[in-house]
Amino acid sequence: MTSPFADAVDRLRPPEPEVLAAARARWDTRIKPQGSLGRLEELGTQLAGIAGTCPPPSIERPSIVVFAGDHGVVARGVSNWPSEITGLMAATVADGEAAINAFARQIGASTRVVDVGMLEPHGHPGVDAERVGAGTADLSVEPAMTLEQARSALDVGATAAAADEGDCLIGGELGIGNTAAAAAVIGTFAPPNDAPLAGLGAGLDPAALPEKERIVRDAAARARALDDPLARLAEVGGFEIAALAGFYVGGVASRRPVIVDGVIGCAALLAAEALAPGTAGGCIAGHRSAEPAATTALEHLGLEPVIDLGLRLGEGTGAALAVPLLRAAIAALTEMAELPAPS
Amino acid sequence: MTSPFADAVDRLRPPEPEVLAAARARWDTRIKPQGSLGRLEELGTQLAGIAGTCPPPSIERPSIVVFAGDHGVVARGVSNWPSEITGLMAATVADGEAAINAFARQIGASTRVVDVGMLEPHGHPGVDAERVGAGTADLSVEPAMTLEQARSALDVGATAAAADEGDCLIGGELGIGNTAAAAAVIGTFAPPNDAPLAGLGAGLDPAALPEKERIVRDAAARARALDDPLARLAEVGGFEIAALAGFYVGGVASRRPVIVDGVIGCAALLAAEALAPGTAGGCIAGHRSAEPAATTALEHLGLEPVIDLGLRLGEGTGAALAVPLLRAAIAALTEMAELPAPS
Repeated sequence: MTSPFADAVDRLRPPEPEVLAAARARWDTRIKPQGSLGRLEELGTQLAGIAGTCPPPSIERPSIVVFAGDHGVVARGVSNWPSEITGLMAATVADGEAAINAFARQIGASTRVVDVGMLEPHGHPGVDAERVGAGTADLSVEPAMTLEQARSALDVGATAAAADEGDCLIGGELGIGNTAAAAAVIGTFAPPNDAPLAGLGAGLDPAALPEKERIVRDAAARARALDDPLARLAEVGGFEIAALAGFYVGGVASRRPVIVDGVIGCAALLAAEALAPGTAGGCIAGHRSAEPAATTALEHLGLEPVIDLGLRLGEGTGAALAVPLLRAAIAALTEMAELPAPS
Repeated sequence: MTSPFADAVDRLRPPEPEVLAAARARWDTRIKPQGSLGRLEELGTQLAGIAGTCPPPSIERPSIVVFAGDHGVVARGVSNWPSEITGLMAATVADGEAAINAFARQIGASTRVVDVGMLEPHGHPGVDAERVGAGTADLSVEPAMTLEQARSALDVGATAAAADEGDCLIGGELGIGNTAAAAAVIGTFAPPNDAPLAGLGAGLDPAALPEKERIVRDAAARARALDDPLARLAEVGGFEIAALAGFYVGGVASRRPVIVDGVIGCAALLAAEALAPGTAGGCIAGHRSAEPAATTALEHLGLEPVIDLGLRLGEGTGAALAVPLLRAAIAALTEMAELPAPS
């Protein structure tokens, strides 16, 4: 049986070694000391590998898709904000007045808001309904999603990537309570360590943090007892997290650069990598979120974020901010003169 | 007796506390969790303070001035490259084919190359001659500059800032051997610590690093024995380093944002702060250079760099890369909707 997500998984290909080698050789012959552009050289090489051509094409029309979903676990006090705020923020993004819109305008990106399962249907113009449920179940006591819901959310994301005309894909998210779900997903798919999983998210009362950590750890332990990656994601994830995972796989399958945002994006990418190995190699970590679980996820994925500015806003903001640095890497690799031959 | 540099020093003013407070209050009422844009919020606030208005004006026409100079200490083997490469790179920047040009085009910046004292006069079109000497003396055995040369180089920089029509100023540099001079300047003006001062610069043979460190430490010790900041700068600095110091003071005096590049810029800013206290408060550290002395300087100046990508190229590249992030901070502070009043 096929599906948009399964089709994307089938199309995943590793970067061609000869393109990576050509990019490294090109960097080494530009008019500068070898390696002196540091991480930008690695990024330019990765972008060449993703596109399958060196120098890589410029990024002209980045696209930001913001997936919104609600979370039953909010009933457990894991957020200081009520679930209704997800809808308010979806409307704000659709109206062009959120942080991600300001950043999108700076980089010339389009933005789209997709309701994958907010608490209530949202009639606001510009919020596209692709609902797979009305908020998830409470992950502290039962599976957050059914397997069918998780599959549908993956398909929503994969379909969004396939339909998107951008030449660089950024997945963002909105979802009160989703730092708890993301931390649980990371605790499920990354090897357990002593670092805390839960953070303060969008401004949790620090007194409530130990209980959030307990909820996240217990849920992750429950999910780790399951063998199937899809069942694990369904157990503790969220609609927008699964949609992001599908979006990443779809984006990577299409050989366009995919920029991952903060802790929610890192959780989605961990799940995507478990479901579709090789996805992470086609993704760029836009930034290092202030949430502790983000660093756990990045280390497990072997990704080094482009920027580290202590952001903890979500929406895709940290990923959007990385775009000019990717463009700079491409511009340098494309436009710099060659080093004169030694005399 | 007056001079362009002295005039600039006279015009330095601290940011107005009420503008900083207005910027912080504006961030706290934008539609996002308080503090969730992390360092971008601090940058937006600083930019408001620099401009004296909140929200701060957008950055439309950044300007990059690349100061080039040569260094007598190259005779001591502190670089694998000969001094002639400074001239080659000045011509490459003037021709628009260096890394800084690629980055300048990405941010819509103008570039200008100023020869403050390369080994030989350079007739290449687009290299402006404001020469105060033909390379410095060897700082390992004698003062690199006379006091008069140091004063003239400060004036070259201050004059360049005053004449510049950009709304954001980036100082870059070219100068084979200048990581040695910069490390010595940092060792002079920052309190001594155990961290190494010298790094591999543009690709020094690691076997030559201990001797570079010895030269830098001995020169810094000699300069620290002098009381006058100008005499200290003259003892171990360089023409382009002094010009950058003047450029920074001139830029800050004009209340435009000044973005400091890597280890050479950090050295120049340390000298500028010693000569004109308050200069550093109007500057933004664009990036953290891979050179160890840069971090020593940044810590002493109390500056947190915007990006940290392991760059060690110079030319102003790390500062230019920070511009889109400053623009994003300004855009968010300007364009984001207000948080709805609590119901």
